[in-house]
Amino acid sequence: MISTEQALQTVLNSAQDFGVEEIPFIKSVGRILKEDIKADRDFPPFNRVSMDGIAIDYSSFKNGQRNFVIEGIQAAGSEQITLQNPENCIEVMTGAMLPNNATAVIRYEDVVIENNTATVSIETVCDRQNIHQKGKDGKVGDLLTQKNTIISAAEIGVLATVGKSTIKVAKQPKVMIISTGDELVGVEEIPLAHQIRRSNVFTLVSLLEKLHISSETEHITDDKPVLKSKIEAYLNEFDVLLFSGAVSKGKFDFLPEVLDELGVEKLFHRVAQRPGKPFWFGISDALGLSEQNVYQSVDKGAENKSQKKTVVFAFPGNPISTFVNCLAYFYPWYYKSVGIEQKEENAILAEDVVFKPSLTYFLQVKLAYRFGHLIATPITGNGSGDLASLVHADAFIQLPSAQTEFKKGEVFKIIRYREL
Amino acid sequence: MISTEQALQTVLNSAQDFGVEEIPFIKSVGRILKEDIKADRDFPPFNRVSMDGIAIDYSSFKNGQRNFVIEGIQAAGSEQITLQNPENCIEVMTGAMLPNNATAVIRYEDVVIENNTATVSIETVCDRQNIHQKGKDGKVGDLLTQKNTIISAAEIGVLATVGKSTIKVAKQPKVMIISTGDELVGVEEIPLAHQIRRSNVFTLVSLLEKLHISSETEHITDDKPVLKSKIEAYLNEFDVLLFSGAVSKGKFDFLPEVLDELGVEKLFHRVAQRPGKPFWFGISDALGLSEQNVYQSVDKGAENKSQKKTVVFAFPGNPISTFVNCLAYFYPWYYKSVGIEQKEENAILAEDVVFKPSLTYFLQVKLAYRFGHLIATPITGNGSGDLASLVHADAFIQLPSAQTEFKKGEVFKIIRYREL
Repeated sequence: MISTEQALQTVLNSAQDFGVEEIPFIKSVGRILKEDIKADRDFPPFNRVSMDGIAIDYSSFKNGQRNFVIEGIQAAGSEQITLQNPENCIEVMTGAMLPNNATAVIRYEDVVIENNTATVSIETVCDRQNIHQKGKDGKVGDLLTQKNTIISAAEIGVLATVGKSTIKVAKQPKVMIISTGDELVGVEEIPLAHQIRRSNVFTLVSLLEKLHISSETEHITDDKPVLKSKIEAYLNEFDVLLFSGAVSKGKFDFLPEVLDELGVEKLFHRVAQRPGKPFWFGISDALGLSEQNVYQSVDKGAENKSQKKTVVFAFPGNPISTFVNCLAYFYPWYYKSVGIEQKEENAILAEDVVFKPSLTYFLQVKLAYRFGHLIATPITGNGSGDLASLVHADAFIQLPSAQTEFKKGEVFKIIRYREL
Repeated sequence: MISTEQALQTVLNSAQDFGVEEIPFIKSVGRILKEDIKADRDFPPFNRVSMDGIAIDYSSFKNGQRNFVIEGIQAAGSEQITLQNPENCIEVMTGAMLPNNATAVIRYEDVVIENNTATVSIETVCDRQNIHQKGKDGKVGDLLTQKNTIISAAEIGVLATVGKSTIKVAKQPKVMIISTGDELVGVEEIPLAHQIRRSNVFTLVSLLEKLHISSETEHITDDKPVLKSKIEAYLNEFDVLLFSGAVSKGKFDFLPEVLDELGVEKLFHRVAQRPGKPFWFGISDALGLSEQNVYQSVDKGAENKSQKKTVVFAFPGNPISTFVNCLAYFYPWYYKSVGIEQKEENAILAEDVVFKPSLTYFLQVKLAYRFGHLIATPITGNGSGDLASLVHADAFIQLPSAQTEFKKGEVFKIIRYREL
């Protein structure tokens, strides 16, 4: 049995590169940018009027002039015009180019317009006022957004501004989510006394959806030959297999055995944590599969074949075990794979907690902000089977195995699954 | 000009109910649950074996017996069997029903099995050990998740467990996003010297996508009759119109005028804040529109017609103004409309800030977690036009208008737009 730290390091060492694809920028929120975005022009691209009003030659105002005959209008989106007479003015609109020869803008609030003449009603006007200078926010060629950024609405605005209608993003891994366990029936079925409904595949689908990864799902009964033949096919087709169940010590927990027979290298089985201890993790190299299988995957080029690795996360079947392991291991693995450095978030424990076993304890907590402090209040569930307790919490707090008493006010890492 | 607090209250008072729709549970992440979810059975639904091992009659162990002949196997997903002889045992798997007459489970690690007999190798066994008691986590009829909850992966698990394959969620508003401004060209176009590309509609689309609201977009040139006829049609068709631009004092800022002519009631125009001051907000009642228009909307029943209100958020055209106003006003309006109480998040200012104008100041900040404290470091942009500065920040900190000096260490509300 290894520690959570060792397990996480092993998982991170198995990060994979899924390559890059080009997609329409407007479909890219939540995806990982894979190219540097540079300014295609200065920002602003011209001396930009930043207030509706009149544009004048500042030196006329400085020389005491207060009445300016209106020569014309410079609208946003119109070609630049020229102030012909330095003693006149031009009406200008926010977003317009500053007219040639104009050097200051006075807002409508500060002038009175009568008979085509604007009279300035304030005493102080500054040179270059209300002009957003060409290139002030950025120069052509400036790096605006670095590759390896998670694209949010802010990046969408930048991409639109510089004309990147399509962009390069990290390809998502192809993921298959597989539940096992003969006690499981479909969501729409009425379970018999000894049955329960499938739920873990759906929580996993939803957790992956948050990462903008779409996935496929399948349920396989506890039948070793069936399990083996299906997994064999999936290893060729998918980048990641996520299992829920069949990794413990039961008579029908065939999964570790089957994965071994299929040449999937076990990197660890069992992690010193609660819940989620029987977590099995391994990696399959296509070269490790039988020749036949490699050649069956006809849609892959010879070069790809030698690169193809499938990462296998086999989580214990208890709902909270599956849930926390996906957050604590699959999420970091994904972020590492696509080039994102995950920031650690931590919170202040609101109550004393005692946990004796020499295991890392992932405890459900409700989060609250108080005066800039993030407070984590434990939600006591009934062990790893209690899915209902998850809906009352927002995160897990990760209490280290070296400690048995955790005091109110101490700060620990949290793994959040709910924002609001 | 009204305060941000008054503006927000006015916006919240205009919250609308869009009704309820039923959708497949697996499509519901991020949507708002509109029914209480109750347990359809006890949790667990039977006395559930929680360790792989053997099930015995505890009194035999208590009476000193240590060797148990194996009578059979109780697998997960099999009908309950019965321990026939209280001096025998049954092999049991995690997730299985506890066999009749069995009262304790001893895990495989603590027994030695030879010749179909299990010998217990530990000294202490407790009555009812390793049995997850029927109903311990919840009873049939218990409320598991309340209506008016944002559905996350945790709720998906609960919905699957209780067999809710379809669920009632809040209908999303129908939203049209409209940009104005003759200086704007498409993302794929090369702007002329006096032009820039459209970006605000796309940031708005992305910000709404975070709320799982899909929206339509349109660009209208600064032509009053065109603007008027298009808006008239949209008022009949959409629940919300989001505008960007044309609300300031410019000659071509026709929007307030057009909205007034179309019978949209102005609730406020201009808010004491920076950026985003010229924000215009109003509401249109279908009854206020011309008879003709009401009757044109043939797909709406007579009763609906009298209820139909369209809420109009007309944001200033500067990129950051549009962005912050969407977060500070549209988001709270949406959450109120669908029945969600938004939690206020606050953070600790990392640097002194001086802001003299008597305006609420929405300042871009970068967030970091340090020892359970959320630290907000200002990112100094170049005023409301500087879209590029948004990509370096994670949130806005809201500095109140009554104060002009804001000290390092003081705590203020933040409005976050990036999670990681």
